[in-house]
Amino acid sequence: MNGSNESVEQPASPRARPERVIADLRELAQLTGGPGGARRVCWTPEWLAARAWLTEKLAALPCQVETDEAGNLWAELSGGSEQIVVVGSHIDSVPHGGWLDGALGVTAALELLRASAESGTPPVTLRLVDWADEEGARFGRSLLGSSAAAGTLDLEQVRGLTDRDGVALPDALAACGVQLDRMREAGARLTDIAAYLELHIEQGPVLEEQGVPLAAVLGTVGVERHAVTFRGRASHAGSTPMHLRRDAFLSAARFALEAREGARAHGAVATCGAVSVEPGIVTAIAGTCTVSLDQRALDADVLAAMLAEARDSAGRIAAEEGTTVSWEPLFQIAPIPFHPTLVGFAEEACREVAGAALRLPSGPLHDAAEMARRAPTAMMFVTSLNGISHSPAEDTPIAHLELAVRAFAALTARTVAWVASGAA
Amino acid sequence: MNGSNESVEQPASPRARPERVIADLRELAQLTGGPGGARRVCWTPEWLAARAWLTEKLAALPCQVETDEAGNLWAELSGGSEQIVVVGSHIDSVPHGGWLDGALGVTAALELLRASAESGTPPVTLRLVDWADEEGARFGRSLLGSSAAAGTLDLEQVRGLTDRDGVALPDALAACGVQLDRMREAGARLTDIAAYLELHIEQGPVLEEQGVPLAAVLGTVGVERHAVTFRGRASHAGSTPMHLRRDAFLSAARFALEAREGARAHGAVATCGAVSVEPGIVTAIAGTCTVSLDQRALDADVLAAMLAEARDSAGRIAAEEGTTVSWEPLFQIAPIPFHPTLVGFAEEACREVAGAALRLPSGPLHDAAEMARRAPTAMMFVTSLNGISHSPAEDTPIAHLELAVRAFAALTARTVAWVASGAA
Repeated sequence: MNGSNESVEQPASPRARPERVIADLRELAQLTGGPGGARRVCWTPEWLAARAWLTEKLAALPCQVETDEAGNLWAELSGGSEQIVVVGSHIDSVPHGGWLDGALGVTAALELLRASAESGTPPVTLRLVDWADEEGARFGRSLLGSSAAAGTLDLEQVRGLTDRDGVALPDALAACGVQLDRMREAGARLTDIAAYLELHIEQGPVLEEQGVPLAAVLGTVGVERHAVTFRGRASHAGSTPMHLRRDAFLSAARFALEAREGARAHGAVATCGAVSVEPGIVTAIAGTCTVSLDQRALDADVLAAMLAEARDSAGRIAAEEGTTVSWEPLFQIAPIPFHPTLVGFAEEACREVAGAALRLPSGPLHDAAEMARRAPTAMMFVTSLNGISHSPAEDTPIAHLELAVRAFAALTARTVAWVASGAA
Repeated sequence: MNGSNESVEQPASPRARPERVIADLRELAQLTGGPGGARRVCWTPEWLAARAWLTEKLAALPCQVETDEAGNLWAELSGGSEQIVVVGSHIDSVPHGGWLDGALGVTAALELLRASAESGTPPVTLRLVDWADEEGARFGRSLLGSSAAAGTLDLEQVRGLTDRDGVALPDALAACGVQLDRMREAGARLTDIAAYLELHIEQGPVLEEQGVPLAAVLGTVGVERHAVTFRGRASHAGSTPMHLRRDAFLSAARFALEAREGARAHGAVATCGAVSVEPGIVTAIAGTCTVSLDQRALDADVLAAMLAEARDSAGRIAAEEGTTVSWEPLFQIAPIPFHPTLVGFAEEACREVAGAALRLPSGPLHDAAEMARRAPTAMMFVTSLNGISHSPAEDTPIAHLELAVRAFAALTARTVAWVASGAA
């Protein structure tokens, strides 16, 4: 990598044809979706059917198609050098999922290989990847295939997972030809990768609200997720005067409102989405109230400050309300910023194709977050109508999908030129 | 009744002996309570056992004991006139209940009849009543026996009630000799009643906090109970920026805090005790949040103002938060003030015996609220330790119980003299 020259000539985009991506997406939805939504849950026959469909599409190209030890599908189009640029996403879905989440990135990558093959030999090798089990819909562990490849998957943490029917994760994987204990060997695929690029729907409302169809993604946000429990005294709603109450719910109510103010002040987000009260009856003051706190920020220092302020807030409120508060950590992940040069390419590509671009952090995690640990990585987002995802109602205007495919091709062309130039 | 002269000479109290009440309470707890708490749930064998115990105690007195059509037990000690003063409460309990809730009032009434019988013939007729099913613990309808006698029980509203095992209310009553369709005939017992008096534990923390063992009860508060539902938009906790959220839980949080301010401003109480959120998961903003609102005040105008202000508050908050709000009424009852002369007697009796008295509204309902519709009525409260009731931990210092029995005897003596004087 040569950091002294990160600028490259603006290259011609491969002649990607968005209408073929739309046609592929519709065909895939016809096969594994419908009115009830996508049903490509990983490690199920429907997912295998989607994989077979993808493999058949790739068979028409001069590609080598393989599945790695973690169940990730790779298709390689050899180029003028052994340097490798990877494009991809995931074909698996949640139950009753949308037609675009993951599938857009895979079909756009397919089109890039197709268009590149039609253009002759690309300057660098292009690889498509379809990550296995991004959603974690069946066993609760998302990013399974990409984390195995990136080396962050702890096998012992997932070995005991079971689905709703009691099927063990290792057995479900084995039925699809994947041995849990060998999954991390998939990491060998990542040793020579010069860049990773992923196109995805936003799964949020910002692009639509701003009236801009495309965004360069700055990285995936860090998450602090905790269960915060206030304990007061359950007492009779009729016989306990206001000044003698120790109301756990009102403590939590104040806490949730202050958490919102904290997120606003930091330009980040905080959510109290799960709430439970005990005894939880109409005639009793809540003796216990637990709320979830989910804080997210792209900057690790901001995230740490938000959490510290929330802890102070909870302690102060508890003292004022005559309650106590305790914290139980649920999930934590550090922010993962994407590669600044590639983020810049993504922004340029969006502007070139759509005339405008936002720069957005990603709230949801993506396989790109795992790849960013191993290679220069960037993502591009396209509008989600009403911010809806993980739902049959998930949708994006066709015109925006077309812009997205063209912009992603432009991003890939810039990245390929950057890699080929030796600047990477 | 002669309203022109409500003052009477201070009479000598009957020689009530508090230690006999304590002994009776302990005997009853031995028979139908224990470490798991009282278990005298109405229309069960344990309740019948408690009734049999009470009947045996009354059999030692020159009393006529009868059960009315609603299952209420009456014991009459004839006096110098046919004017009737009623003293009583309820011997039934909730499951795992306390040893004093209801039982204190019944055993104190028993002692008054016993002491009066020992003193000769009382100036007016004294009647003890043990109301049936005050708690409504098995079928969910409280004040069943007293409301039947007072004429406020709607038979059609209770006919279809069943317990947890599917037993129908009419069948459970019939097993105890009560015919649902004849319950309201119990009203005949109330035609000649000059006054009704009841001693009860406070079931709240105020007396203990104020360091005063006894209170005259001003009446039972009115209740406005509603389910208040805020609806916003469920969206992803990671991808929805703060300014695009329509968070139903935060709307409810603001509403609950404002309801508290409203109650404080009016010197009344308001409680949001039941809270539910949808989808109720850590990673989603609440699309729907329902909270219960329970407002109580002794003054009907105050109660109406509190409710109106809460409705305004909810509407304003919903508009500010981009949510909507809807209300579903759950329960409403008007305040029932007790008789001012008898409340004054209760206060005097408390001061005479304990040197101090509070004047308190009752947050919980009592059979006295039903009786107040039909006759001059008053209640007296004694300390509940830690405000706890409906629990095996329910307790009152023995010294306070002794003061309570003596003060209740003094209240009864004043009331008897007032009735006998023709001032009632």
